[in-house]
Amino acid sequence: MPGPVKLGDIAARLGARVIGGAETLIEQVASLEHAGPRHLAFYSGPRYRAQLAATRAGAVILAPQAEAATKLPRLVADNPHACFAKAAQLLNPVAPPSTGVHASAQVHSAAGVAPSACIEAGAVVGAGAVVGERAWIGAGCYVGEGATIGADSHLHPHAVVYGGCRLGARVIVHAGAVIGADGFGLANEDGRWVKVPQIGRVLIGDDVEIGANTTIDRGALDDTVIEEGVKLDNQIQIGHNCRIGAHTAMAGCVGVAGSAVIGRHCTFGAAAMILGHLSICDGVRVSAGTLISRSIHKPGTYTGIFPFDENAAWLRNAALLRRLSELAARVGELEKTRGKRNKRHG
Amino acid sequence: MPGPVKLGDIAARLGARVIGGAETLIEQVASLEHAGPRHLAFYSGPRYRAQLAATRAGAVILAPQAEAATKLPRLVADNPHACFAKAAQLLNPVAPPSTGVHASAQVHSAAGVAPSACIEAGAVVGAGAVVGERAWIGAGCYVGEGATIGADSHLHPHAVVYGGCRLGARVIVHAGAVIGADGFGLANEDGRWVKVPQIGRVLIGDDVEIGANTTIDRGALDDTVIEEGVKLDNQIQIGHNCRIGAHTAMAGCVGVAGSAVIGRHCTFGAAAMILGHLSICDGVRVSAGTLISRSIHKPGTYTGIFPFDENAAWLRNAALLRRLSELAARVGELEKTRGKRNKRHG
Amino acid sequence: MPGPVKLGDIAARLGARVIGGAETLIEQVASLEHAGPRHLAFYSGPRYRAQLAATRAGAVILAPQAEAATKLPRLVADNPHACFAKAAQLLNPVAPPSTGVHASAQVHSAAGVAPSACIEAGAVVGAGAVVGERAWIGAGCYVGEGATIGADSHLHPHAVVYGGCRLGARVIVHAGAVIGADGFGLANEDGRWVKVPQIGRVLIGDDVEIGANTTIDRGALDDTVIEEGVKLDNQIQIGHNCRIGAHTAMAGCVGVAGSAVIGRHCTFGAAAMILGHLSICDGVRVSAGTLISRSIHKPGTYTGIFPFDENAAWLRNAALLRRLSELAARVGELEKTRGKRNKRHG
Repeated sequence: MPGPVKLGDIAARLGARVIGGAETLIEQVASLEHAGPRHLAFYSGPRYRAQLAATRAGAVILAPQAEAATKLPRLVADNPHACFAKAAQLLNPVAPPSTGVHASAQVHSAAGVAPSACIEAGAVVGAGAVVGERAWIGAGCYVGEGATIGADSHLHPHAVVYGGCRLGARVIVHAGAVIGADGFGLANEDGRWVKVPQIGRVLIGDDVEIGANTTIDRGALDDTVIEEGVKLDNQIQIGHNCRIGAHTAMAGCVGVAGSAVIGRHCTFGAAAMILGHLSICDGVRVSAGTLISRSIHKPGTYTGIFPFDENAAWLRNAALLRRLSELAARVGELEKTRGKRNKRHG
Repeated sequence: MPGPVKLGDIAARLGARVIGGAETLIEQVASLEHAGPRHLAFYSGPRYRAQLAATRAGAVILAPQAEAATKLPRLVADNPHACFAKAAQLLNPVAPPSTGVHASAQVHSAAGVAPSACIEAGAVVGAGAVVGERAWIGAGCYVGEGATIGADSHLHPHAVVYGGCRLGARVIVHAGAVIGADGFGLANEDGRWVKVPQIGRVLIGDDVEIGANTTIDRGALDDTVIEEGVKLDNQIQIGHNCRIGAHTAMAGCVGVAGSAVIGRHCTFGAAAMILGHLSICDGVRVSAGTLISRSIHKPGTYTGIFPFDENAAWLRNAALLRRLSELAARVGELEKTRGKRNKRHG
Repeated sequence: MPGPVKLGDIAARLGARVIGGAETLIEQVASLEHAGPRHLAFYSGPRYRAQLAATRAGAVILAPQAEAATKLPRLVADNPHACFAKAAQLLNPVAPPSTGVHASAQVHSAAGVAPSACIEAGAVVGAGAVVGERAWIGAGCYVGEGATIGADSHLHPHAVVYGGCRLGARVIVHAGAVIGADGFGLANEDGRWVKVPQIGRVLIGDDVEIGANTTIDRGALDDTVIEEGVKLDNQIQIGHNCRIGAHTAMAGCVGVAGSAVIGRHCTFGAAAMILGHLSICDGVRVSAGTLISRSIHKPGTYTGIFPFDENAAWLRNAALLRRLSELAARVGELEKTRGKRNKRHG
């Protein structure tokens, strides 16, 4: 965290309008609930009106339609959430501890590490690997033979990038993520599995973020591709040969089976599951816990969740669900009876 | 494993009652099925009666109501499972290989490591980090800047604790777990995602256990809190700003989305999924595979699982499920017809 | 990749029949779509007829019934997928960078490492551990006290094998996998959890492959067993005391709760979930996203997936699902009415 900044200066930097107290000194962002006089808080809407009334924040960011909701010094922005994100970035710049290679790191003599890059303790960088300007390779990371890490990218401790994979610029990879492990390629011969070598790569575009312990498999023959601006949360599994379109976001525990092609600007709720070889068009929203078993060609929101209930009620309904076709047949039978009767009575 | 212990001494240590053979020497715990004469086994109930009859165990732990179920030397305890757990702990004490910092570990000069702590090979401890008395930091672990590891805690190899996070006393963290990675905080601006810096911490209470490859994200502004005595199995994902109440247990693959507040003494079956911003009261049991999409205010057991079936039967029922509203409409139609007819016939 | 190989030599090595161009030089396998003149591609069936017609591949592998589908040089094999897998293996031999122990690796003096084994940078091998001939322990791996790694096995970077676990020959473990962490064994005493020490091991047979960030827990008292030829994809969780039968394959994100016994030659789709203490016979196929809550004694395919739909349609159907027992009661009521009426009219 740098020193305090005047609210007016933040407004100028972010293109926001300031109302009252442009001289207010801001040191950090905080929640409405816990903010103090040197904090800038974010008011997202009426649900938080009580918290806004009670806040001790030095200033608040809000939307034009809410600008009269408080008398505190405030920043007004058309997209207050994005404005708050940028203010938080301004107050919390990220920088590596130092440049250069730590004495305990193992960088192959045939690797190309930019002088402005930082390689932390115990990291391993293989032959032919390239680490770009200002890239930051955290403690214990592994960058395999011939892999490329773009400028300004940041691998948190213990991230693993297998040989040959390519990360663009400003990519963030969290701890324990594994990029480029073998896809699940198997041929069956007389009941035994024969491994299909996985010789494709993983190609990751600029500005992608990859969560902790997420795994992205290398392609079988061609490459697995994560386009620019994709955001993946933790514990996600992306199978071999997938393509994830630009600016798509996936919440934690999502799984995408092999060779699925997913469009741009899609969102996937937690633990959504996409079967293999499907194609999903741009602008699709998949709800949490939903298994997508067919291609989707129309933007929109798609859901498939068994509604939870008290256990006893669930037991009753679930038992009936197993006999749903029987129930439908009984209804059909009633309809036939009525049909006859209607004829008789008609 | 220490040397053999007399059954009577175990009974005295655990406050159990011994029947027959207090002099029996016990070296280890074992299952009824595989136990030998120097083993202590656990009889959990009638389901295992045949195994009890056939066991070659030197002694058995059981409940008062089962004390006549065998003639073997035995320990009788009101809570035989807990008694067995403690007997197993007694016979399997856990201790680090040695105290001190391994030559290949990288401990920052501004870190505070207790003299009785053990830092194994290749571990990295950042500036300002504190490692408590008798804490055990396994090989290749990462303890970030300003993080705190409480007394008697044990990080298994390759556990990662990001900067600023705090673990209490007697916390166990298994390999590959990641504590404190960034939460999934994004603002959307014209179709692109803007990262919201995650400046909260993860605070973990005493006696918490965290399974292999589990991830717990740091808070966005405030902290993510795991209260004392919580037990998390493997591959669990806890989103930013969650609070998990004391003594709650979660089985493998559970996911908790951001800002969920979960009560004390809850249990979650494998792969249960909790959506964000929900609140779940104390004493709730969520069944495996159940997605919780609304807050729960009443203790009890909650379930939502699609019952599995042979594929052909499932196909029939699932197809009907998509037309359930149509089926209900047909029933409504039949009821109307009957209503008219009843009038006619009435 | 070694130098180019004649198509006829590949045919001879794999026992395939060559048609046309046995002298064609092949350097690599590739997809029909991206293959060039020195590439061997695989034609899996009519779905890819257009790609076969357009391919620039030097040669193609296909089944006897498809041998007339192209005029290109080709290999004909009864099991073309397995033949392609073996051709790809031939053209992509896997070998460690060198034999011997890297200077930065920490191998305990009481460990037994075969002279032909390769231990990469930063790896840790504990006391009493055994690493077999030609085994390859990747950068930063951890092999605990008394663990055994069989001949020709390959641990990719950052794999963790806890003490006492045993891996057979030709086992592949991908990055971030954790073998032998404690199972989730807890006894409840007055609302608090008492840890049950997990003193069993993990035993892994020959030719097993384990995906990135997959976790396999050690047994509580007895062992967790993964039989020969089992293939596990990424992010899978296997609970303590499970037994997975030989040649069974599991796709990504599958979970198997403790003490489940799973047969041989089974397949599990992505994110399938198996509850604990169940038994599943040989030859069972579980569909993706299916939760298995009861033992299965008959081979076949089993499914339980809530069909996804557009959100509005799902909302309607899901709401009705919660009232399914009510709907069934209404149908029963109609049937009773009809019964009476039929009597009246009969």
